[in-house]
Amino acid sequence: MDFELDKSYEILRRTPAVLRSLLSGISEEWTMSNEGPDSFSPYDVVGHLIHGEKTDWPDRARMILQHGITQTFVPYDRFAMFEESKGKTLGTLLDEFEIVRNNNLAWLESLNLSPVELASKGIHPSFGEVRLDQLLATWVVHDLTHIAQIGRVMAKQYKGAIGPWTEFFRILNF
Amino acid sequence: MDFELDKSYEILRRTPAVLRSLLSGISEEWTMSNEGPDSFSPYDVVGHLIHGEKTDWPDRARMILQHGITQTFVPYDRFAMFEESKGKTLGTLLDEFEIVRNNNLAWLESLNLSPVELASKGIHPSFGEVRLDQLLATWVVHDLTHIAQIGRVMAKQYKGAIGPWTEFFRILNF
Repeated sequence: MDFELDKSYEILRRTPAVLRSLLSGISEEWTMSNEGPDSFSPYDVVGHLIHGEKTDWPDRARMILQHGITQTFVPYDRFAMFEESKGKTLGTLLDEFEIVRNNNLAWLESLNLSPVELASKGIHPSFGEVRLDQLLATWVVHDLTHIAQIGRVMAKQYKGAIGPWTEFFRILNF
Repeated sequence: MDFELDKSYEILRRTPAVLRSLLSGISEEWTMSNEGPDSFSPYDVVGHLIHGEKTDWPDRARMILQHGITQTFVPYDRFAMFEESKGKTLGTLLDEFEIVRNNNLAWLESLNLSPVELASKGIHPSFGEVRLDQLLATWVVHDLTHIAQIGRVMAKQYKGAIGPWTEFFRILNF
């Protein structure tokens, strides 16, 4: 499947509602449990997504458009939410994510990006030259893989409860 | 996390809305693409979940309650939806899933299952004795792992579009 801006928006627009329908109002045993040391709970993931909206995706897109390959992206802090989410409820985070995501998409749409702009390049700190369309596709994939992660992490909480059925769920043995 | 009926309902009740918010109205390239031969597209997964509601979860629960270990569950046909979904739109399947799921949950709640009933046993065709609470926990895990699967399958469609970022997404290399 080739990159298309419209098909990317289809996913990026929906993620706040997906997370809300999955997580809003359920017990903390589902939302605050993780997969072990250094792993993310669903609550952590929502904070991580907020951090990306505030510091990563729009900043990198702006840097490509304004500075091209003359500047290198700031490395992404994948653990910033452990501090930033402190004291906030999951409901607050879900609201916050919806707001920052909607603001970012409104900004992105206002740019009316041309094919030439979408092919313009920036410098990633790990692997060098990347195109704007690759950055935007990664934003989409990042959403989808974190939705997948949340489903997996929640499923794992019932690993003991399903008894012999564990053998049918490869995903629980990761 | 131990099995609790209320915490199981929290997930089972939400899945139709989660799938609707994730899949309703998006392009067929997202919903009809799979991971290769013999794998499921998001469209296939919704049909598979409907089949489970119609023939698997409630029938097995009923069999445990009525016949205990004197009858063996009918093996689950994991590919039935390839026939049953034919000619139906994804929108139709999402509607259908919501209806059959809601009906099954209304039935299950009407039973007011006691702890003794939840511990009652049936016979699984592959691994023998299983408890009703294990069956219900598996229903929950089945939902969550299929949500995870849908996120993963959709993410994979953009594998080529993200360029060098593939190295950061372990999930795309499954």
